[in-house]
Amino acid sequence: MQAHLMQRTAAQTGSSQRSLNACASHSGLQQLQKGAGSRIRISTPVNGCGSANVVRAARREVQSKVRAQAATVDKVSAPTSASSNGSGTRVMIIGGDGYCGWATALHLSQRGYNVCIVDNLCRRQYDLTLGLDTMTPIASIQDRIRRWGEISGRHIDLAIGDVCDWDFFGEKFRSFSPDAVVHFGEQRSAPYSMIDRKHAVYTQSNNVMGTLNVLYAIKDFRPDCHLVKLGTMGEYGTPNIDIEEGYITINHNGRSDTLPFPKQGGSFYHLSKVHDTHNIAFAARAWKVAATDLNQGVVYGVRTEETAADPMLFNRFDYDGIFGTALNRFVVQAAVGHPLTVYGKGGQTRGYLDIRDTVRCIQIAIDNPASSGEMRVFNQFTQQFSVNQLAEIVKQGGKKFGLDVQVTNVPNPRVEAEEHYYNAKNTKLQDLGLQPHYLEDSMVDSLLQFAMTYKDRVRMELIKPAVDWRAKTGQAAAAAASK
Amino acid sequence: MQAHLMQRTAAQTGSSQRSLNACASHSGLQQLQKGAGSRIRISTPVNGCGSANVVRAARREVQSKVRAQAATVDKVSAPTSASSNGSGTRVMIIGGDGYCGWATALHLSQRGYNVCIVDNLCRRQYDLTLGLDTMTPIASIQDRIRRWGEISGRHIDLAIGDVCDWDFFGEKFRSFSPDAVVHFGEQRSAPYSMIDRKHAVYTQSNNVMGTLNVLYAIKDFRPDCHLVKLGTMGEYGTPNIDIEEGYITINHNGRSDTLPFPKQGGSFYHLSKVHDTHNIAFAARAWKVAATDLNQGVVYGVRTEETAADPMLFNRFDYDGIFGTALNRFVVQAAVGHPLTVYGKGGQTRGYLDIRDTVRCIQIAIDNPASSGEMRVFNQFTQQFSVNQLAEIVKQGGKKFGLDVQVTNVPNPRVEAEEHYYNAKNTKLQDLGLQPHYLEDSMVDSLLQFAMTYKDRVRMELIKPAVDWRAKTGQAAAAAASK
Repeated sequence: MQAHLMQRTAAQTGSSQRSLNACASHSGLQQLQKGAGSRIRISTPVNGCGSANVVRAARREVQSKVRAQAATVDKVSAPTSASSNGSGTRVMIIGGDGYCGWATALHLSQRGYNVCIVDNLCRRQYDLTLGLDTMTPIASIQDRIRRWGEISGRHIDLAIGDVCDWDFFGEKFRSFSPDAVVHFGEQRSAPYSMIDRKHAVYTQSNNVMGTLNVLYAIKDFRPDCHLVKLGTMGEYGTPNIDIEEGYITINHNGRSDTLPFPKQGGSFYHLSKVHDTHNIAFAARAWKVAATDLNQGVVYGVRTEETAADPMLFNRFDYDGIFGTALNRFVVQAAVGHPLTVYGKGGQTRGYLDIRDTVRCIQIAIDNPASSGEMRVFNQFTQQFSVNQLAEIVKQGGKKFGLDVQVTNVPNPRVEAEEHYYNAKNTKLQDLGLQPHYLEDSMVDSLLQFAMTYKDRVRMELIKPAVDWRAKTGQAAAAAASK
Repeated sequence: MQAHLMQRTAAQTGSSQRSLNACASHSGLQQLQKGAGSRIRISTPVNGCGSANVVRAARREVQSKVRAQAATVDKVSAPTSASSNGSGTRVMIIGGDGYCGWATALHLSQRGYNVCIVDNLCRRQYDLTLGLDTMTPIASIQDRIRRWGEISGRHIDLAIGDVCDWDFFGEKFRSFSPDAVVHFGEQRSAPYSMIDRKHAVYTQSNNVMGTLNVLYAIKDFRPDCHLVKLGTMGEYGTPNIDIEEGYITINHNGRSDTLPFPKQGGSFYHLSKVHDTHNIAFAARAWKVAATDLNQGVVYGVRTEETAADPMLFNRFDYDGIFGTALNRFVVQAAVGHPLTVYGKGGQTRGYLDIRDTVRCIQIAIDNPASSGEMRVFNQFTQQFSVNQLAEIVKQGGKKFGLDVQVTNVPNPRVEAEEHYYNAKNTKLQDLGLQPHYLEDSMVDSLLQFAMTYKDRVRMELIKPAVDWRAKTGQAAAAAASK
């Protein structure tokens, strides 16, 4: 039934979903947009924020169509397998309209947590500005939350605004007074951060200052609030030794200390998370903040039990050269009959996890909070793969759908080791009860299925590498614009 | 003769020098000022930027007085001992109006380097806003440079503007096209960064984004320009193992790698430098930038050969609770007969160096540049002392001036280990030719002498701790305001 529903919704909604997106309020983002015409020239916006009246009118029209459509969608009962152990725990989810954030919000809401989403909708705005789009059609955050209320009977609080805007965020944090705050609210694309100087500055400013605001909100308004912060496995880089979970005991000249694991982020995005980690560790030491830093691997998958329950709850799926990951790109390429494009030699190895494990990891972290003054680090991934291994898994998965998947190597736009040692520890979350989903199963279960369902929405020109790490300012933007 | 000159200048110029300071143009700084009245309330500005006409008129009046005074100052010939080995090497000094920057600018100019100072004068603006002042009277940057030209026959280029303002900075960098850029242009006080959320955000935004701009300027306009960046020994924190110079070889589970030394900065200021270090290391890897990261210890001393050559060239000396270091505070307390105030147990141990060694270290780094793609780290200090040892050295130094120096312990406003292991390496600069000055000699040579000369300008209420690391937002500010 699910696949049927999806197809129908895709046909009805089509790409007009793009027009639903509201204009982000972030001032840094507005700065970027202001400069985009004259200096960045990434591409012509699909739907800019320029003419407010026209945009508002178009938005009203599309929203009414979506509402009408929602009324005709087959009623789907809320997922029932979840245990309701949240017991009203108050959880603020910053970035709750994003890929991981939305899935987490529903997962927790379904299990009895009292959820408040804070989001400035900048992720949707990036797509508008860069001319990108999710493969799966997604509803507006307002419609998502309304629909969730209808089918689950559960309320999610929504605050549209920017974590970097203290007047807004401080007041919302103070009034909601969360027991835990899950911070997904950062610009999360390495290529986006490497487009040019403005995007690097925007990424680090947005991410680092946002997290500073979260830390000050905890310190000033709710010192016992547990911070669950999304970091990335990319903070570690690719050292020639085993990667521990956040800290390493070093024996040196006859003495010993357990110190933060050395960090070597490979883009200004990854580095923004490195900076966050250092700031949070200080807040834990100085102010006794309780924090869990989740160094997450590359997330794949588009459905969780809750997001799959209704077309209006569908999650986004990014396959473009800026926000799509290698795995998503491969899946889409397989579905549309394009050779899988491996960057460079393909020996680049990283940690991966299914989005169903992401939401479970967040819940585990909330249910087992860090101690006051502790910044603990969990490496949040379930399996390691090289890019070549990913390509092979997609190729094998494709066979079950009758797809003849080819693989090709293209020049690597990034600066990274293409053959290296990689062995990262990830036992802490599994010790707390995580039961992983594995990629080989998910590939056939949902990934390729989704890609084939929505392949008519795929725009091939978005898939190729859009940002070169070494390009001079303007060149990367020009390359993106010419795609 | 020098002491005589100093005294005369102090009497003539007095505290009216404060009015010389121009308004900083930094937008982040303006944000801070805007909020200061309603939310930060640090103290009433001595001379705000509010009424532009009144300020301009006052400034014209004071400037004409200073010029008249300069005309009557005994002519002092330029220092002659310097070898002129700069050979026209083009050096941009960002933050060249600050304490280390000004001394470095003159040191290099005197030795034949072609110097351009970039500064937005924010350091002077911090004093205006917080009601602080240097113990030594200092001239405006324009008068400083003019006077330097008169007595040395050497030209220093001056660009007033903000490294965070790309339109200004990018163009200045492109047109000057430096062979080396020395980046002092950061907010450099740990207590300032801990005043409240706004000051933390300002410090990290100003410092990290400024350095990003410098990196992009090098990449886009002059890829072979050598970056000499001022870091701090405070990036390392106080680990229980020896502190190496930037990197450490770690043997772990049978494998080995040389990785960045783990960092544990103790304030949002120190952390801003940690963030810079990670960003610079990435730029070296990705773009082949040649960089020297100077992890500098606490600098003391007020005179170099050049700054002491004329009263108009005098350097600043900060003794207040926000910008003054423990050593400066002790020296001033000794001079005015106040017990030396040791924070906490006094076992806090750090690296120190004389400002005459700072300027020499910068020159050594420029003369022996890093390789393309290398971010090398020098630990730039010459001696280690605990706070208790500093107090004892000042006490012993005071005896030679007939001062009966007492020592007292006060509650520590910072969060830091007060008894700890500390052993940091510092051989690289000495291997390249640095011949250190030692504190025990400088104490009598110049530090206590200067403090006694200018003790009438000391405002005792500025010395006590102004910022508590643990205070809620507003409390630290209120404490500072009530001083």
